[in-house]
Formats: sequence, C-alpha cells, structure tokens
Amino acid sequence: MTREYRVAVLGATGAVGTEMVRLLHERRFPLSQLRLFASERSAGRWLTFGDESLPVEAVSAENLKGIDLALGAADAGLVRQWAPLLQEVGAVFIDNSSAFRQDPAVPLVVPEVNPEDLDHHTGIIANPNCSTILMVVALWPLHRVRPIRRLVIATYQAASGAGAAAMEELQRQTQDYLDGRPLKPEVFPHPIAFNLFPHNSAIGPDFYCEEERKMILETRRIFHAPTLAITATCVRVPVLRAHSEAINIEFHEPFAVEQARALLGAAPGVRLVEDWQANHFPMPNEASNRDEVLVGRIRQDLSLPTALELWLSGDQIRKGAALNAVQIAEHLVGRSA
Amino acid sequence: MTREYRVAVLGATGAVGTEMVRLLHERRFPLSQLRLFASERSAGRWLTFGDESLPVEAVSAENLKGIDLALGAADAGLVRQWAPLLQEVGAVFIDNSSAFRQDPAVPLVVPEVNPEDLDHHTGIIANPNCSTILMVVALWPLHRVRPIRRLVIATYQAASGAGAAAMEELQRQTQDYLDGRPLKPEVFPHPIAFNLFPHNSAIGPDFYCEEERKMILETRRIFHAPTLAITATCVRVPVLRAHSEAINIEFHEPFAVEQARALLGAAPGVRLVEDWQANHFPMPNEASNRDEVLVGRIRQDLSLPTALELWLSGDQIRKGAALNAVQIAEHLVGRSA
Repeated sequence: MTREYRVAVLGATGAVGTEMVRLLHERRFPLSQLRLFASERSAGRWLTFGDESLPVEAVSAENLKGIDLALGAADAGLVRQWAPLLQEVGAVFIDNSSAFRQDPAVPLVVPEVNPEDLDHHTGIIANPNCSTILMVVALWPLHRVRPIRRLVIATYQAASGAGAAAMEELQRQTQDYLDGRPLKPEVFPHPIAFNLFPHNSAIGPDFYCEEERKMILETRRIFHAPTLAITATCVRVPVLRAHSEAINIEFHEPFAVEQARALLGAAPGVRLVEDWQANHFPMPNEASNRDEVLVGRIRQDLSLPTALELWLSGDQIRKGAALNAVQIAEHLVGRSA
Repeated sequence: MTREYRVAVLGATGAVGTEMVRLLHERRFPLSQLRLFASERSAGRWLTFGDESLPVEAVSAENLKGIDLALGAADAGLVRQWAPLLQEVGAVFIDNSSAFRQDPAVPLVVPEVNPEDLDHHTGIIANPNCSTILMVVALWPLHRVRPIRRLVIATYQAASGAGAAAMEELQRQTQDYLDGRPLKPEVFPHPIAFNLFPHNSAIGPDFYCEEERKMILETRRIFHAPTLAITATCVRVPVLRAHSEAINIEFHEPFAVEQARALLGAAPGVRLVEDWQANHFPMPNEASNRDEVLVGRIRQDLSLPTALELWLSGDQIRKGAALNAVQIAEHLVGRSA
C-alpha cells in the first residue's frame, strides 16, 4: 500500500511550473490531489493535468491548507513570501528558486549525486541552478572516482532560463530580424536574435555574474567540496530550451579517457552522444524534451596531462529545473513509503 | 610618389572575397588596377568596386599575367592549384586559406602582432584562421608583457565561417523553423536554426577538430611560442557574421586586472567594451561590420591566482579574414614604398 500525497505546484503557469505539472502526470507521481498556485495575477486561469482541467489559485495560508508536498517554480522574491505559509501548514517544500540554495539548513540536491542529503531536511529542499544541475550530473561519475581539482566552464545557455516570455521574445525578435523590422529587446537587455551575450544576471564585486557564482557555490555544496576551484563564463545564446557547456576538468592526476567514457556511459541521468566519425555530439535540439544530460567529446586535454575536455547539452526546463525537482519528490516519497 | 599596384582578388565572389574588394575601396588601397578572379563556375559574373563594375575572370596563368599582388579567398584545394600560377607571374600572394599556414617558409601574420615576419617571405604570406586572428589581437598585448603559460578556449562561431551559403542557410532554416516546416541541413551537417554544435571540421586522431588544431598551431606560430599550452573547444552557433570567444588565460605569475585592462585599452585593433553596471560587453551584433576586436569582461580568475578571464567578439569576415589580409597588403606596400 503506497501512500498518496496532496501536491501543490507554486508558480504553475510559467515554463518550469507547467513542465512540473506535465512530469507529475507522465511519471505517475503518487498523488491524491494536485493543486496549482500562482501569483494573484495568474490566479483564475485553468491548466491541463492529463485529461483534467485544474484551476490556478492564489497563494494564501488558507488555500495551502492540507498540502503535503509543494514544488516551487516561482522567483526567489515570491518564494521567500510563500515559504513561511508552507511551513505553517506543514508541507515539505522543494523549491527551484535561488532563495534557499545557500542556506546551510537546506539540502541542495541532485538525486543522481547527493540523494543522502535529503535525510536531513527541515521542511525545505532546494533545487539547484539549471547550469549547475546539468554539469554535476556529468561530472559526479568522474569526481567520485578521482576528485576534480579545477573546472574551467563556458556555457551556451538557452532563452528558457529566463522563462517562457524570453523564449517568445527570441522567436518574435528573430522573425522581426528576418523581416527587416527593428529589434525591441524587452525581456533581455540586449537583442537575442542571431546574437549572444554574457549572462544577464547581476554582476558582483568579484566581477562574476550571479549565474557564474551559482555554478561555483552550488557545485561545491552538492559535491561537499567547499574549496573546489571553479571558474565560469556564462553566456546567453539564441537557442530555445537546452543549455550546452564546454567544461575543462583538471584532476590531481591523469584520468584515462577510456575510463571516463565508460563511467559516463554507465552513469544515471547521462546519455553518451559521441560519434567521432560523423561529428555527432550533444546538441540542444536533441537534448530538448529529454530527461538525460547528453555528454560527449570527452578528450584528453592536449595542454595539460591531468585534464579532460567534455561537452554537454541538457534540457534546461526538464533536468535543469522541473524534472530534478520531481525526482527529489520521488526520492522523498520512496523514503517515506 | 607612391607606387600603385596591380591587385587581384582570387575567390572574389564569396563572403570573404567580396569583403576584400569592399575594403580595398574603403581603405583606398594604392592600386592601378583591380582584377577579380574565381573558379570557372563563377567566372563571367560582375562585381562592384566603388562606382565601377568589374568582370570576374577564370584563374589561368595567361589571365594572371601582370598581377603584382594577389589576395586569396578561396578554399585550400583551389589555392594549391593557383599558387604556382601566381609564383610563375611573380605576384606576391596573401592567402586566406589553410593551404600554407604551417609551411615554415610562409609567414603567418597578424599585423598587430608579428608584422616583422613579413620581412622574410618568399612570395606567399598566409592569413591565419579567423578564430585565431581575433584571439591573438586580444592576447598579444598581454603576452608580450608577461608570457602566457596556458590557454583554455571556448568559441561561439558564426555561420559566416562556413561561407555565404551557410549564412543563407541559417536565415532560411530559421524561417522554416518559425513557420513549422521541417529543417533541411545542406551546408552544415546539423540543423543550425536555434541550435548549436561542436565545430563541423574534420576530427583528428587526437580527437581535436581541425578548427581547434588551427587555433593551437597557428597561435604558437604567430607568437613564436612553439610549446605554448593551448586547448580549445570550437562551437558553431546561430549567429551570422561575428565570432565570440571565452578565453581563460593562465600566466606564469599573477597579472593585475587593471594592468591588463590598460594594456588592452591602448592596444591596436582592440576596442574595450566593458560596462559592468549595464552588463554591456562584446556582442556579435556590435562586432559585425567593425574593424576592431571587441574585448571585455576581463576578470581575475577566482579559481587560479595566475589566471585571467577574457571575453571577445570580432567580425569573422572582416578582421577574421578579409581585413587582416588587406592590412598585410598595406604593410607590404608601406615597406616597398
């Protein structure tokens, strides 16, 4: 006899929220009730869950009563207001925003990497940043065998990371470009049609942008490697929903490419895409709408005997956000079953 | 009294060839005659040079007679057939293909970096690979002050690197995507609309693709640093005509960011684009149709005290190819004036 859960999705109308709803259905999550929540502005809309149509409710302590498990897909500001309400009603909260990711009391979890951190939560579990999730899924199988010394990362991040409106802007603006109309950036600060730019998140006093800082700090937390040396350059590219990353991995000692390939070929959540003859490697169009992180181009770095090069693409909305959160929920359910 | 030259552009009908013709006009290159050449297939067309219209001729020893200086914008296969004909008529040949770039008798020149190598040519001068040119313009001002130890590069390369047909394919295929039509890759092996992929050049036994190998070997030649440690991941992105690069630069000792910024701010061929407040850095749309390489996001690498991070965008057709060749020609002319 499996217990069933009363589940809420908070921020259900966005790109990540709608994907969470889709995944709860697809993966037959054991729920007795699904409730959808959003900000006042989106409340009153209806969303599809399998064959059902469900109303979107406004978040309030009253409305949240009875919820066992909540998945958060709203931005950090809203989430900070909503978290106390969830705590009040006793719901476990798996949050995709950055609000609690650096809170030492909050586990930051990628189920393929550190599921054991779920043993010690106190009501909130944080879902990591999308670029970080995709990377650690690919690096953990190597790091656990031979610890990584330093990472040099360059990302190729899709518009979806900035939400559904950004994906629409990319398509609309591209059509404007092709039609010779002037480009009007609204969601992004710069034109995105046939263009790219360093990630548009706030730049800190160390000159790293927030996205880069997330990759550094979150990877260290997830790996329990607080001093791991990491540098990153995060870049927004005119792609819709899958991120790619070029990762230079320095180890303390040489790591045979064949061993790395074998480990990644057998790793959960990873799919090796490496046809050297056909020059066929991970690409966003093939990573989109897939659960696995596509990994390939694993090469000995010719500039350093202790380093490997690796390339990956992964669905930003799915494994980079919604799927990881649902997998965390599945782990919690498995534990309490 | 300045001498004037009888100049030929070989491969004049392509993206780089037409840009060479445009630049010879714009920069008032001292020519007494301009002749345009292409393969048999394109001969007979007419191209614009300022107010004039010039015929495109087929390459032959007979037709090339009288040429003093030839700029090559054709692929390596054709160039290998044409070079002996140019040698025969005594023309100096500045070639943009990869045919002679690793020939020790042929100088490989970026005028901002190693103009002195032009002193020792024997009739052929090679124009480096586009990604390499853009990078060395940005790195030389640092390397000459404090030698670089190792480079970790990730590129974001425009369609133009594969020629005018590839630029058309990107636009046509993007329209197909937006209209919901199936994508038909012809020039590129994979879809390029809203997609990206590791550079589609031949992969060698070391698992590096040709473009990556060019960046490694050509940078070493241009810098006269035969053992410089370099690794690169080259990636094709859905951008039209400017490449971008994320470059991690390791020195033998720490390099103050302020000094690097001052050196690059004063460097020929470089334009600093660094507004940290507005998150405004080099972008392909602003690098397109410009002569300078846009450089910015110069940061201390937080993972290594002896490393800096740097980001650049540069016009692939202009400084990455046609402009560099014309600048070489200008240097030769300056020397013999």
